[in-house]
Amino acid sequence: MLNKANLELGMSPSMIRRLFEYSKKRKEEIGENNVFDFSIGNPAFKTPDKVTNELIDLIKNTDPVVLHSYSSSSGIDSVKKVINNNLYKKYQINVDEKCLYLTCGAAASLTISLHALINEGDEIIIIAPYFPEYKIFIENAHGKVVILDSEIPSFLPNLVNLEKLINEKTKGIIINSPVNPTGVLYKDETLKQIADILNKKQKEYHNNIYLLSDEPYRELIYDGLSYPHPASYYDNTIICYSYSKSLSLPGERIGYIALNDKIENKQELFYAICGSGRALGFVCAPVLFQRLIERVDTNLVDINLYQDNRDYLYHELINIGYEVVKPEGAFYIFIKALEDDSYNFIKKALKYELIMVPSDSFGVKGYARIAYCVKKDLIEKSIESFKKLYLEYKEKRNE
Amino acid sequence: MLNKANLELGMSPSMIRRLFEYSKKRKEEIGENNVFDFSIGNPAFKTPDKVTNELIDLIKNTDPVVLHSYSSSSGIDSVKKVINNNLYKKYQINVDEKCLYLTCGAAASLTISLHALINEGDEIIIIAPYFPEYKIFIENAHGKVVILDSEIPSFLPNLVNLEKLINEKTKGIIINSPVNPTGVLYKDETLKQIADILNKKQKEYHNNIYLLSDEPYRELIYDGLSYPHPASYYDNTIICYSYSKSLSLPGERIGYIALNDKIENKQELFYAICGSGRALGFVCAPVLFQRLIERVDTNLVDINLYQDNRDYLYHELINIGYEVVKPEGAFYIFIKALEDDSYNFIKKALKYELIMVPSDSFGVKGYARIAYCVKKDLIEKSIESFKKLYLEYKEKRNE
Repeated sequence: MLNKANLELGMSPSMIRRLFEYSKKRKEEIGENNVFDFSIGNPAFKTPDKVTNELIDLIKNTDPVVLHSYSSSSGIDSVKKVINNNLYKKYQINVDEKCLYLTCGAAASLTISLHALINEGDEIIIIAPYFPEYKIFIENAHGKVVILDSEIPSFLPNLVNLEKLINEKTKGIIINSPVNPTGVLYKDETLKQIADILNKKQKEYHNNIYLLSDEPYRELIYDGLSYPHPASYYDNTIICYSYSKSLSLPGERIGYIALNDKIENKQELFYAICGSGRALGFVCAPVLFQRLIERVDTNLVDINLYQDNRDYLYHELINIGYEVVKPEGAFYIFIKALEDDSYNFIKKALKYELIMVPSDSFGVKGYARIAYCVKKDLIEKSIESFKKLYLEYKEKRNE
Repeated sequence: MLNKANLELGMSPSMIRRLFEYSKKRKEEIGENNVFDFSIGNPAFKTPDKVTNELIDLIKNTDPVVLHSYSSSSGIDSVKKVINNNLYKKYQINVDEKCLYLTCGAAASLTISLHALINEGDEIIIIAPYFPEYKIFIENAHGKVVILDSEIPSFLPNLVNLEKLINEKTKGIIINSPVNPTGVLYKDETLKQIADILNKKQKEYHNNIYLLSDEPYRELIYDGLSYPHPASYYDNTIICYSYSKSLSLPGERIGYIALNDKIENKQELFYAICGSGRALGFVCAPVLFQRLIERVDTNLVDINLYQDNRDYLYHELINIGYEVVKPEGAFYIFIKALEDDSYNFIKKALKYELIMVPSDSFGVKGYARIAYCVKKDLIEKSIESFKKLYLEYKEKRNE
């Protein structure tokens, strides 16, 4: 008998991955430009030229022995210094560079943090709609998943319920702003209220409750809005970051965990993170990309391309008649399915070569996620399919 | 309360890592060439020029969107095909390319495999002296570590005891040939006997017992010897590989898990591996290095440099009077400490700037590991220190 949980997991790959594999096949059959693949957050916009040039420069002009050798498990000191400085410059938050831990991307940042925090049975709150991997990561760390609902139509967390869900076993809450899959941005008011509730409950239970801020999309914010950083609101904040989206390097697996300076047991938590990374087999984050980050930490992809996509797609969908949540960040649109069963809805959409992810994957019913991190012409070409899909439902209603 | 096991682990980093950090500091104090750092398996020989050139070519001449995007979780198909073909060419073993899983190096290959196999309480046998991380990886997967001793002076596994240690809870055994820390190579006879015992016990308990072959050093074999591949001897063999040593890319984290074609429940096991990799947060192996492997899978570092180091160091140590195990592979020499307490021995060695790892880290007493993957002139310069250390003990005995 193999490991039961992992066997089950492997036999039912995530809907996102399944649609990703379906789309790969479908593209081979009918051509890449005829499949409107909105399934996965795989950016279609290239990494900045500076990234490419610095990569080449690093490889050409660094002694290969130095370049490719192991780093300390938590990463290269000079890289941490750069990250630390830029976090302060961008968000005026202090993190201790001695407590920075470079990782293989956001998933690793989360699993390492969760395994550092959780003792069997501890509870972690996630907010529906949530990124589906959260559940798997928490359960793998032998934690209990507690789901908080969102208010409709704002898709902001239901704070009355948050207060009710916290108990003496609550170890943390994962916050992901701007949110995958809705694109909703948590503003000043929401973050303040969350911090108030967590602080109150920490006192009540004499426990630390950690806010895990999963923030790979924090730089993808539109309409000139700025990103209110959770660490400015709540002391016990663990930053889980990835460069996958901000530098368009999703396959290279590079990110970090940073601890807010005001975390009371910061040093102890950092030790637990080091132990966790080691026990899970991470060794060190890929060193070529660590050194790259030292040079390009702030050289982001062109956000205007995403904003342009959002503007266009949002207005077209509204014009057709769809109900959608207007995203202020990330690169997802959450669209109301035209029937209660979102699986049926996305299945019908496949007839028109539209690939979306049913919202059941994110823990809510009746919606679908559109990842619009694709080339604009593909979005333009897809509008006809969105129209046909809408018409199909309209005709059925009129029958 | 943070996670207890990981906090403890993080507060007591491995002896190897601690010595590595000590050596970094010491080098800053007295200069890099005055510290004889034999602590860590960080190759001092550069990756082949072909690797560097292919990396640059990949970055220069591939569409960056394609180059850096997510791959399937198990890796890029064309890369798997190359690995598969080369495994057959080199060792005449068949692995199904559909059951290949690219990883972030050997540690990840092991943790992912162990988490795929182990249900709470299952037992995994490791052979002392063993790579210290094995214990941590097994325990993190909620398995029980069972330690098999080696015969002295051959440092081959004690096969009489192997038979006794296997019971109905035995899920697997980790084999690491050539062995870190002794450099001993398992030959035909040993592998045959191990396979016989495992096959007999599988029948007896109606259970699969998996042989996890941790083989990052399989290409570093000296004296013209060849590598007898465990999968040629035993059907239920899981290959855990890393390019860290064979391509001198330890910090880049690239390797794979390959399943022997004859594993009965191969497909099921592959699913469990996919589930395990996902739950641990690996997402996919770094894609730039996946694509690199497609081009350089067989372009190894120059083995002669290591053999030259081994020949020189082995003979010098013998001439001084040390008792050492003659290594036939890998890049470690296991030297008998000059007193029972190997911690004291390596502490005394530090006075002469010799950094070795005490054998207690590997689960046996009275030895030290020398990692000779350093430049030869450093070894030459170190001989004087080895002499002084030997004399210190001799004089004490004569007092």
